[in-house]
Amino acid sequence: MAVIDFRLRPPVKGFLDMVMYSKAERRDGITRQHGMEPAASAQAKSMDQLLAEMDAAGVTCGVVMGRYSGLYGSVSNQDVADIVRTWPGRFVGVGSIDPSDRKRAIAQIDEAIALGLKGINLEPGAYALPLYTDDRRLYPIYAYCEDKGIPVTIMGGGSAGPDLSYTCPVHVDRVAGDFPALKIAITHGAWPWVQEILHVAFRRPNIYLSPDQYLCNMPGMDDWVRAANGFLADRFLYASSYPFIGVKLYADWFRALPIKPELLDGLMYRNAARFLGLP
Amino acid sequence: MAVIDFRLRPPVKGFLDMVMYSKAERRDGITRQHGMEPAASAQAKSMDQLLAEMDAAGVTCGVVMGRYSGLYGSVSNQDVADIVRTWPGRFVGVGSIDPSDRKRAIAQIDEAIALGLKGINLEPGAYALPLYTDDRRLYPIYAYCEDKGIPVTIMGGGSAGPDLSYTCPVHVDRVAGDFPALKIAITHGAWPWVQEILHVAFRRPNIYLSPDQYLCNMPGMDDWVRAANGFLADRFLYASSYPFIGVKLYADWFRALPIKPELLDGLMYRNAARFLGLP
Amino acid sequence: MAVIDFRLRPPVKGFLDMVMYSKAERRDGITRQHGMEPAASAQAKSMDQLLAEMDAAGVTCGVVMGRYSGLYGSVSNQDVADIVRTWPGRFVGVGSIDPSDRKRAIAQIDEAIALGLKGINLEPGAYALPLYTDDRRLYPIYAYCEDKGIPVTIMGGGSAGPDLSYTCPVHVDRVAGDFPALKIAITHGAWPWVQEILHVAFRRPNIYLSPDQYLCNMPGMDDWVRAANGFLADRFLYASSYPFIGVKLYADWFRALPIKPELLDGLMYRNAARFLGLP
Repeated sequence: MAVIDFRLRPPVKGFLDMVMYSKAERRDGITRQHGMEPAASAQAKSMDQLLAEMDAAGVTCGVVMGRYSGLYGSVSNQDVADIVRTWPGRFVGVGSIDPSDRKRAIAQIDEAIALGLKGINLEPGAYALPLYTDDRRLYPIYAYCEDKGIPVTIMGGGSAGPDLSYTCPVHVDRVAGDFPALKIAITHGAWPWVQEILHVAFRRPNIYLSPDQYLCNMPGMDDWVRAANGFLADRFLYASSYPFIGVKLYADWFRALPIKPELLDGLMYRNAARFLGLP
Repeated sequence: MAVIDFRLRPPVKGFLDMVMYSKAERRDGITRQHGMEPAASAQAKSMDQLLAEMDAAGVTCGVVMGRYSGLYGSVSNQDVADIVRTWPGRFVGVGSIDPSDRKRAIAQIDEAIALGLKGINLEPGAYALPLYTDDRRLYPIYAYCEDKGIPVTIMGGGSAGPDLSYTCPVHVDRVAGDFPALKIAITHGAWPWVQEILHVAFRRPNIYLSPDQYLCNMPGMDDWVRAANGFLADRFLYASSYPFIGVKLYADWFRALPIKPELLDGLMYRNAARFLGLP
Repeated sequence: MAVIDFRLRPPVKGFLDMVMYSKAERRDGITRQHGMEPAASAQAKSMDQLLAEMDAAGVTCGVVMGRYSGLYGSVSNQDVADIVRTWPGRFVGVGSIDPSDRKRAIAQIDEAIALGLKGINLEPGAYALPLYTDDRRLYPIYAYCEDKGIPVTIMGGGSAGPDLSYTCPVHVDRVAGDFPALKIAITHGAWPWVQEILHVAFRRPNIYLSPDQYLCNMPGMDDWVRAANGFLADRFLYASSYPFIGVKLYADWFRALPIKPELLDGLMYRNAARFLGLP
């Protein structure tokens, strides 16, 4: 069985400058808040160990997302493309943009697609000037991606902004309604707004959800499992959010959840492949 | 044991023009998202089959609510009264109003009561100009109903407005506090704001709650069951939200929930009878 | 094992004038909504009975908080200090302030500390002029307490304001982020915003949470238990919210929850002692 880990930040290139690698103690503290132990590969910043952990977990492919963030650091689209090229078949790339200049952002989208990246990652609350997901300044970007058929990932949960209001699903509900043909995946699963984002997915068929690390021993996890076993079965995206949770540790933990076995292939592979337009 | 199904839209008169019957595919998709199969009577648009399903479910009486909606279609108060008269004893009617003209709305309330209807149904977020439940333009209506002792139902959950903010229970909390003698029933149970609306009911004794279809296999259902077994036992209103869930299918599903048997008569009949002022 | 009950209002001094004692019927109604019976000591307004119930519950110490409230009545800092002095070792005091005059509020903080009180209690939504927790008028108070190392308790759940918006954890999330060295305990656990406040505690290490009465048979309690057994283990504060729940009844109920036995000492004593700076 092929498995796509929808959010995986390898210890290489621009990722090494991000808070998640430069402040290992902070990261490991978060890991332990999830009741997990840090992954050896994360602590060693070792690509070889990570690939071995992916093999052990049965994770055939990781989605590597670019990032342009005031809060957490940045990874360029070129870096993402280089990672995809360096380890063929093991990673799929998603690009990012600078939202402060509309025309430059559109150019970056075109560049990202030309580099072979499969979608665009937005992190509205984490920009140098934090934005709500339905900020008007993002609407030209949504319109462009809808028109071009480019899927968009939005970091819409966890500490995704200066405060809890940035993850409230009201904002993404509006975007999903205003751009009904735009495929949107919410990473970090809008945590802690679990029931609210599940409502948005119930209502809006263009919404995919990836609770990733915030599924792991967090309040709301029972509702995630119920939804994954039910109406969300074909729009749930499996992800470890590595390095916050180890790829192998997450996979073992996930496979022990009370999820219907016949749904695992969709949750762990097919939904992500369909979302990203993979062959 | 008598059973009142608090939200039931029969396939007859103005209901047939509503989205729920004119777009059967959309409706059946929603039904399947709840993990249920469409009811035969809904697909056949057959009153005879519906009445047979009600009999099989032990549902003695269905509450038929008028609607004045830009989003979902309308059913006149006269239609509702006709349905009640055509099948004596099987239906209780609740009227609706056009909120855009305060004086006309008050006249419609009087007309509805004169027609024998037992309350007024408001759907603030679904009007042609969507309103929040605590919009000032609804306050004369609340005041009139409070003064006259007319119970009000509010569609306050699910896709009840342009976005998730319309169902946030903050709005109805204010209304319940500002009109403490007004009996208010929230249909669609403010889903997905389950814990928040349960707080409002905990605090405001004039609030009744009917999660109806959004109880059915949805996130939050465990909290509904806990509340129905506890402080909400005398203000929970049983409803299938037919045709979204079949009357018989819902009844079977509901009766299998871990609810204290001695409470069922209140949850499924007496609370609704008391709310509507039935003999 | 020593036990600190973090929110306990004894039937003596200014507390007797508060709604919770002057309107016994309202209080007992709330108690029964929790599925509990009123405590004998509350109904008799008997300190002797309360102390006996504390002994029977193993509660060695109760935290008595002053209050300055338009909504619920007031208890002066002097009253709190007198209670602490009258029953040595059985109570720890927390003071309160009038937020309408910045300079007077700062003077009250100094007076409270001089009286031996261990922190300052704010009830933003319950002031005569209700405030949100992140209201600018409270910021000088937060700044002063942060600078002086004085812990702050905030009534941030239940009926803590005119409507549900006052308890939404967005507000306290901002305060915790803006004053990272200020220790903040949320009493009434931000109920009903359980998942949202747990996110705030996950993100902000200066947040302590006490669900107190709103843990007791309320929606969300499973998430509280999961968090208490997990990342919140060293910042959960045990409290009955007496007289709404009896000290002994709450203790028996709490000890029957599926909480890891090895965590009970932290949850029921050490976290509160560390928060208040007790020896």
